[in-house]
Amino acid sequence: MKLDERTAYAQVSAPARLAGPGEGISAEELALAARNHGMPQEALRYDVTPVGLHYLLTHYDIPAIDPAAWRLAVSGGVHRPLTLDLHSLRALPARTVRVTMECAGNGRARLDPRPVSQPWLVDAVGTADWTGAPLRDLLAVTGLAEDAVEIVFTGADHGVERGVEQDYQRSLPIAEALGRDVLLAYAMNGAPLPPQHGAPVRLIVPGWYGMAHVKWLKGITVTAEPFTGYQQQTAYNLRQQPDDPGEPVTRIRPRAMLIPPGFPDFLSRARIVHPGPVLLRGRAWSGGAPVKGVAVSTDGGTRWAPAILDDPDGHPWAWRGFSFAWRATPGEYLLAAHATDESGATQPTTQSWNRGGFANNAIHLTKTICVPEEKP
Amino acid sequence: MKLDERTAYAQVSAPARLAGPGEGISAEELALAARNHGMPQEALRYDVTPVGLHYLLTHYDIPAIDPAAWRLAVSGGVHRPLTLDLHSLRALPARTVRVTMECAGNGRARLDPRPVSQPWLVDAVGTADWTGAPLRDLLAVTGLAEDAVEIVFTGADHGVERGVEQDYQRSLPIAEALGRDVLLAYAMNGAPLPPQHGAPVRLIVPGWYGMAHVKWLKGITVTAEPFTGYQQQTAYNLRQQPDDPGEPVTRIRPRAMLIPPGFPDFLSRARIVHPGPVLLRGRAWSGGAPVKGVAVSTDGGTRWAPAILDDPDGHPWAWRGFSFAWRATPGEYLLAAHATDESGATQPTTQSWNRGGFANNAIHLTKTICVPEEKP
Repeated sequence: MKLDERTAYAQVSAPARLAGPGEGISAEELALAARNHGMPQEALRYDVTPVGLHYLLTHYDIPAIDPAAWRLAVSGGVHRPLTLDLHSLRALPARTVRVTMECAGNGRARLDPRPVSQPWLVDAVGTADWTGAPLRDLLAVTGLAEDAVEIVFTGADHGVERGVEQDYQRSLPIAEALGRDVLLAYAMNGAPLPPQHGAPVRLIVPGWYGMAHVKWLKGITVTAEPFTGYQQQTAYNLRQQPDDPGEPVTRIRPRAMLIPPGFPDFLSRARIVHPGPVLLRGRAWSGGAPVKGVAVSTDGGTRWAPAILDDPDGHPWAWRGFSFAWRATPGEYLLAAHATDESGATQPTTQSWNRGGFANNAIHLTKTICVPEEKP
Repeated sequence: MKLDERTAYAQVSAPARLAGPGEGISAEELALAARNHGMPQEALRYDVTPVGLHYLLTHYDIPAIDPAAWRLAVSGGVHRPLTLDLHSLRALPARTVRVTMECAGNGRARLDPRPVSQPWLVDAVGTADWTGAPLRDLLAVTGLAEDAVEIVFTGADHGVERGVEQDYQRSLPIAEALGRDVLLAYAMNGAPLPPQHGAPVRLIVPGWYGMAHVKWLKGITVTAEPFTGYQQQTAYNLRQQPDDPGEPVTRIRPRAMLIPPGFPDFLSRARIVHPGPVLLRGRAWSGGAPVKGVAVSTDGGTRWAPAILDDPDGHPWAWRGFSFAWRATPGEYLLAAHATDESGATQPTTQSWNRGGFANNAIHLTKTICVPEEKP
């Protein structure tokens, strides 16, 4: 059979759709869940998420890039276009920023109807120390054209998505791109980037959902017009209907998560604790403004009490620890935490629905039972 | 409400069951898929899987263990019981072994009916360089009782599974445990074990499915009777009916996997290649005997042709590379590979069914389309 590209892509690359009523997770969604992984919730215990526990989402394949052969082309509306190798990038002044990153699709699989895509529940988050050259230092070298409006970042990951063949590309408005902490990062937690996190160089945009942090960066193009590529205008927008113009997904909405107390059941992941004092600990973050307060509930959100925030640790883009002293007595509980940031943004009780399943930050409930220890 | 342990555990820890006809993946299975992750298939390109890409299965929580406080107790049928710290373990002669590890439940979610558990498709594999002290060197220090039959290994991971509260425990027959390459490993790929792979010390049993490689090791007990713990006698056995005595799951059955050629579609993971010569590469492994041959099919398994095995690389417990030259012409293909080992064991076309969904090694098909490149 002869195939042209459009016919062929239509066969393997279906349009975006919503799952039907009662439609279970498909084999395709499950295959994405096996490739891409969340952060096990007990890893909330680490200030910095160890490599291998940080959440991971790869649209296409993880590219194989030889660091010695890697080049970054800076082009478009710049006075001095240039092509940079890794040695030259590392020669620029280095900056390290601790960043909590969350996938824009976190929570998608809890929506009804469910957008058919990577089926995240609540685990698509992680915090890392990223080291690299501030983008603005590189742009100070190239200069920016007067009419520059956006910067387009191109990754080496290549594939087809909803029928569109593409390199992964995203843009930032100039003002965002010039932030002091926007990095061309070549190290994660003090070591060279692992392949899956964008080796040898990725973009870091603190406070933004993960889609902005372009991995396997190969090109930077300054443009005089807003970028209209697939990942910018088609994906990663909040829409109620397919033909809505869409509100772009940008900064991470506030969220608090508890470190699951006690120990789990293998399948249900329900938690078991024994009677007595239990120190509930957790982490809270927001990309829009610093976290102002966290509240905790043990009855599924009927009653709330304030948690104690950890002292600021000098990492404004990273999650903030909190504590809550609970006296457990035998029974069943639904533990929950919610965060509010200094802009007043907070977390809803139920998921806000949109066709892409983006930017959900509903309060998460952790089923917990408290049982007396049996004496042998 | 008052709860005793048994009542309570029954509420959060259901018995093993099979999914009903047409029953989709449950939220609980999906939560396990988000925590535990497979190896993205393109990572078959690496001889040694980078940390973070190796498959991972954690029954309960990843424990937090301070390496300085870690102790390993060796007890039971030994002449000189002892308790070892990390410094003492590292003082024993070190050995490094490259091992391909696969989860015994790999392929479970493809079964019909589907056992409700961690819903692996085909990605639960990885290869690492493990460094540690051979267990037999430690047992030479403690001595073994005359009546020693098995060695029980206890991990620090604690939870409830199918109503049974437990530390994760598995045993090995003495003869297996004394193998030269059975390690108490403290390093992975040349660095200290990451938390999720058993830090600070885990067991490595080359050739066996993953359940034998006890992580977060805290105890070694030599016994005069076969071990009857949950993970030995209840789980990890091949059974057609719940009351079958069960055949224990032990060594990894042969499997070959192709590195997916070309580039993927985001959701379907179908592959796209362009016409012309395509070098298909892959990896093959077996825990029972060395891989003897690999065959490749481009038509879903109707016709097979031999692949070329890479030269042996001195790593008998690791996967072996293979190559196959394919001339792609426009059309649709189902690419497949299958391995045969020197014992004559090979791969079935369809999954062999058992109630636990263990030890499946059916041939995997990779949907691939070849399309002409459009000239702009």
